[in-house]
Amino acid sequence: MLNFTFENPTRIFFGKGQVKRLGEEVKRYAQRVLLLYGGGSIKANGIYGQVVAALNESGISYVELGGVKPNPRIDSVREGVRLCRENDLQLVLAAGGGSVIDCAKIIAAGFYYNGDPWDFFIRRARIAQALPVGVVLTLAATGSEMNNNAVISNEETREKKGLSSNLLFPRFAILDPVYTYTVPPLQTAAGVADIMSHVFEQYFSANSDAYLQDRMCEAVLKTCIRYGPIACAEPDNYEARANLMWASTIGLNGILSVGKLTDWATHMMEHEVSALYDVTHGVGLAILTPYWMEYVLDEATVSRFALYARNVWELTEGDEQELARQGIAKTREFFKSLGLPATLGEVGVKEDSLELMAERAAGGGTLGRLRKLGKEDVLRILRNAL
Amino acid sequence: MLNFTFENPTRIFFGKGQVKRLGEEVKRYAQRVLLLYGGGSIKANGIYGQVVAALNESGISYVELGGVKPNPRIDSVREGVRLCRENDLQLVLAAGGGSVIDCAKIIAAGFYYNGDPWDFFIRRARIAQALPVGVVLTLAATGSEMNNNAVISNEETREKKGLSSNLLFPRFAILDPVYTYTVPPLQTAAGVADIMSHVFEQYFSANSDAYLQDRMCEAVLKTCIRYGPIACAEPDNYEARANLMWASTIGLNGILSVGKLTDWATHMMEHEVSALYDVTHGVGLAILTPYWMEYVLDEATVSRFALYARNVWELTEGDEQELARQGIAKTREFFKSLGLPATLGEVGVKEDSLELMAERAAGGGTLGRLRKLGKEDVLRILRNAL
Repeated sequence: MLNFTFENPTRIFFGKGQVKRLGEEVKRYAQRVLLLYGGGSIKANGIYGQVVAALNESGISYVELGGVKPNPRIDSVREGVRLCRENDLQLVLAAGGGSVIDCAKIIAAGFYYNGDPWDFFIRRARIAQALPVGVVLTLAATGSEMNNNAVISNEETREKKGLSSNLLFPRFAILDPVYTYTVPPLQTAAGVADIMSHVFEQYFSANSDAYLQDRMCEAVLKTCIRYGPIACAEPDNYEARANLMWASTIGLNGILSVGKLTDWATHMMEHEVSALYDVTHGVGLAILTPYWMEYVLDEATVSRFALYARNVWELTEGDEQELARQGIAKTREFFKSLGLPATLGEVGVKEDSLELMAERAAGGGTLGRLRKLGKEDVLRILRNAL
Repeated sequence: MLNFTFENPTRIFFGKGQVKRLGEEVKRYAQRVLLLYGGGSIKANGIYGQVVAALNESGISYVELGGVKPNPRIDSVREGVRLCRENDLQLVLAAGGGSVIDCAKIIAAGFYYNGDPWDFFIRRARIAQALPVGVVLTLAATGSEMNNNAVISNEETREKKGLSSNLLFPRFAILDPVYTYTVPPLQTAAGVADIMSHVFEQYFSANSDAYLQDRMCEAVLKTCIRYGPIACAEPDNYEARANLMWASTIGLNGILSVGKLTDWATHMMEHEVSALYDVTHGVGLAILTPYWMEYVLDEATVSRFALYARNVWELTEGDEQELARQGIAKTREFFKSLGLPATLGEVGVKEDSLELMAERAAGGGTLGRLRKLGKEDVLRILRNAL
């Protein structure tokens, strides 16, 4: 097990009706907040009304910024920073999924930075201070509700980049599984794929001596496999929604990756796909994951994939190589069974853009750790997935 | 899944040589500390020297209080509070296992309370403020290094009581698996039993809809089963010590119990045993656990024990009842295989004290949640275990 440091100060309020804690929590930090949300579905499903009522009851004033898109744009960040400054706001409240939360985090950091917030992503500036961020989660997927990461897209440069800073941990997150009842099946499925992909990146690591963490990874994967289909078929199944929501949080709050050399090649590749094509992140991951698995499966990695097949899919027949292949096939079938696309072609990716994506993903070096991938490797994986 | 709140702000420094972080971390909170430790083994094995060197290098002054006993006494707490006040100390640094850490926590709280610190345990006073606590862990067992609990014994009244307060989370904990190399096999085994018992209390819960948490519980149990025997046989096996140390922390840092109706009957019974007989906590738990399992096994609970047998012990033969019994038998055999006593008689418990223990454990009501136990139930379990 590698040396590590771990800390995660986010306070979680989990369960039905936890929005009742919102006013009290916000008041610990702020009297005036930026209320950030996405495409307006929270108005249709009543979440917006509950959030606004909670703020009003506690006498907290708010300025709204809606319309944050999936794969959130740096433009939304700039607009949020402007609103926070103009209105002297003290906290950014994200009511949404990972895109809204990530946007909120960078608005919070941008507030204290005198340059353009994209500078954080191109390493021209470091985050030195940030407003507090609060979360009302509406989608089980990214884990952003309890971690220090943010991913933002730049439409001008057609880039999508991520960063981490301990200043970006949300102070609190309200996780009400009922708030995900109205998420449509395909988006639910994409969320499940996102959670599972986060776990794969941490599970298929270059070291195998973090036994406890590996078993915990399997716990999250099994949870997705059990409840993903149920949540798609019965959108208001509380047990399924609750387990998936908590799986999303555990999946990327840092507890699974400690002591491990994690991979993240599939994410790096997917970022390039969704930077160019604006594919839903979880969909891109569901497509690429089985192709990545097949590509990196070799003598050195076969035992890890066989372990995955045995412990997660409960497969028992065949030698290590056969088990590994069956486990990968099960993964592909599972995503398909949730109605997710299985090839890049299905989501509109064109052959002539693969070179650029591979180039950018490799960035002149390699990606991944289970097996290091150069530009040519990435290109092969993308071609296989087309 | 039940509604829950979760927060855990303890900062973890895990791995070989992490004592190098000690000075810097302490300095965030204090220039003068109380250095608390146990029976002096840390002087023999060199940990004391490394801690003191780290404090000296950072110019941190310290007052020492050694001799904190297993099942730590309220007397040590009183002495620690006195030293902190007399010397105007600003942080309590626990170098030891759960007993030393628990003692440190209550010293930290007692510092700000003008009455006797035992008042916290008899609910005569609430913890309103506490000095920061830091930890250098030397035993994988209690999980106290990353939680808000403390258990203290009162020799005068022969009572052992616990409490929780979010003010008691250690600010930081240094977890170096190498620091457990000198823990003798029997104490290592008692630590493993302690970790497993914590997980059992959370795993065998009255609700079964927290699927993810249950799978995570199994992950910790499997880790103990895999590495317990290795650590006993090869005391300096880093992988085994590291996995057990992290298992102890994960086992009781709150992440396994969220959303669950946890049991804790075995702990309540064991507290009465070790209050009267000063048995090592983990030993008492190893003895009582299989007897508790047998006693609560019935129509209503059989499916949970069968699941345990399948998922943790990988048993497959027989019906639910048979699987459940085999799982319990495996548990008993495992503790025996680690050299732990299997009956209360072996650790000197006398028949004539069982009544008092049962009386105190039940406290005029019931304990446990998987199955509620009254005084007569407890008495039967203790008699079976004698």
